[in-house]
Amino acid sequence: MIELYTAATPNGWKASVALEEMQLEYVVKPVNLMEGEQKTDMFLSLNPNGRIPVIVDKNNGDFVVFESGAIMLYLAEMSGKFLPTCTKKRSKVMQWLMFQMAGVGPMMGQANVFYRYFPEKIQPAIDRYQNEVSRLLKVLDTHLNDHEYLVDDYSIADMANWCWVRTYGWSGVSIDDMPNLNRWRHSIESRPLARKGVEVPGKIDKDKLLKGAKHVVTR
Amino acid sequence: MIELYTAATPNGWKASVALEEMQLEYVVKPVNLMEGEQKTDMFLSLNPNGRIPVIVDKNNGDFVVFESGAIMLYLAEMSGKFLPTCTKKRSKVMQWLMFQMAGVGPMMGQANVFYRYFPEKIQPAIDRYQNEVSRLLKVLDTHLNDHEYLVDDYSIADMANWCWVRTYGWSGVSIDDMPNLNRWRHSIESRPLARKGVEVPGKIDKDKLLKGAKHVVTR
Repeated sequence: MIELYTAATPNGWKASVALEEMQLEYVVKPVNLMEGEQKTDMFLSLNPNGRIPVIVDKNNGDFVVFESGAIMLYLAEMSGKFLPTCTKKRSKVMQWLMFQMAGVGPMMGQANVFYRYFPEKIQPAIDRYQNEVSRLLKVLDTHLNDHEYLVDDYSIADMANWCWVRTYGWSGVSIDDMPNLNRWRHSIESRPLARKGVEVPGKIDKDKLLKGAKHVVTR
Repeated sequence: MIELYTAATPNGWKASVALEEMQLEYVVKPVNLMEGEQKTDMFLSLNPNGRIPVIVDKNNGDFVVFESGAIMLYLAEMSGKFLPTCTKKRSKVMQWLMFQMAGVGPMMGQANVFYRYFPEKIQPAIDRYQNEVSRLLKVLDTHLNDHEYLVDDYSIADMANWCWVRTYGWSGVSIDDMPNLNRWRHSIESRPLARKGVEVPGKIDKDKLLKGAKHVVTR
């Protein structure tokens, strides 16, 4: 059994999509980011960086994993799914996973900050990040021109990038001129378990948050 | 033999430090970022994202690896060095490597952009990124209070974070109040091969750049 501390963000979904796709049993522990639950002592004892998602593997001595990319890798190796064992293919999946971790995620995150949340409207910063996001998405679109998925079969690299790419509208960029990216996005969007993953943690009651009750996904 | 396409940046050093520490034979192919060599068709055929570093493994069918984190992982698995085989320790190394890839690297990069390069001085953006860098470095400092290295023995997670952390001055932040981070930083700085790695590609002549001659590290 895996405990998943998460919230409804692209990084959170990366963990829940992986858990769903790999058909692993897990308990959702929603973390209320607006109330700063990710900065409580209890949460910082799990992840000193104070960020979701975090998993605790109850079947492996309560082993804690933070950083969404490391969580996906841990789960893929545990389940033997969505990560090739062949050295070259495995490395390619890691390359596109790192591309998401170091590029797509941070840059879409910054675009969101300046486009949506920042107290002042700073157009040069908005432009910088929207342009960089468009450039990165175009890299994916070009690669997907002759690849059905990022690396051969559907893998954790697709899941990771998809969880961010699908929120392009929130970053205020258009992907209308990226037919390959759209084809790939719709293809993943049509996977029932991926779609279920991005509904986690879903609508939650106040009393279902960190210190309170939890909901269990059993199979 | 590994071909390393690189430039004198923290991400470039991550690859050369790993190659040096693992005592692998490699050829340096300097890429002139100022002249945009990373955006040439030749380079984009190696890494569609147009970023250094990239390695080509001549002993593995000219296999190409981009993204510095994926390069470190590939080399560690190839050499059997600086990455534990035990599932838990290995995952911990991956967690701190991802922390660098998704946090320290992108945020120090943005701090550098707004503090050093941006055409306008936008103080709220400078503050945002310098504050976030300080927060991330403090996470490392706190963790290193009771850890000699990030995960047990010195690993690729230390190399990756160190290559960025050592440039804190360039980002305009202070680490004077972070004794553990300084102890760890000096400890790595005193490793001859790590120090050699951050001198790559070193002073290079115009005619030694991408299309020209190369220098070989033999052992």
